[in-house]
Amino acid sequence: MSKLSEQEIEKRLLRFPDWEYYDDAIHAEFEFENFKDCFSAMSRIAFECEALNHHPDWSNVYNVLTISLSTHSAHGVTDLDFKLAEAIETIVEPEE
Amino acid sequence: MSKLSEQEIEKRLLRFPDWEYYDDAIHAEFEFENFKDCFSAMSRIAFECEALNHHPDWSNVYNVLTISLSTHSAHGVTDLDFKLAEAIETIVEPEE
Repeated sequence: MSKLSEQEIEKRLLRFPDWEYYDDAIHAEFEFENFKDCFSAMSRIAFECEALNHHPDWSNVYNVLTISLSTHSAHGVTDLDFKLAEAIETIVEPEE
Repeated sequence: MSKLSEQEIEKRLLRFPDWEYYDDAIHAEFEFENFKDCFSAMSRIAFECEALNHHPDWSNVYNVLTISLSTHSAHGVTDLDFKLAEAIETIVEPEE
């Protein structure tokens, strides 16, 4: 899995308006109605992480979930991070 | 729910060696064997949070869980934070 160039990352991010690139990772913040909805989404994301064998750096405070994705072994953002971001988008925004 | 004094917090923390008090909150970090074990503990903690109607500021990276507890409405640490810390300890260290 090789690190994507900044240009490639910015190009791919056009399809991911919730996400921003900085500090060698892509980052997003999602707001839910309450803790239960937020943690339910986290549980569904956790299954995707295990399936992809790729795990986020994420934080939660009540109804807000903050996620950062990067590939440690590549020291940056790889295709795997975009795969996980795509899975996350499907979970948090199922109506789009 | 009223804010506990620093002296009272430090006294109670004697029973919670995993936890430290600073920045008006109590903090702990727990390490698990892998992501699945860590997220399983988070799920069990999430149920306790809902039961107590009290929620942590928490982060996860792979097998490490970092938790901060405070009571926003009291601008500090209250009895409720220790109730949740106790529930968390029972979940993450069931053999003690």
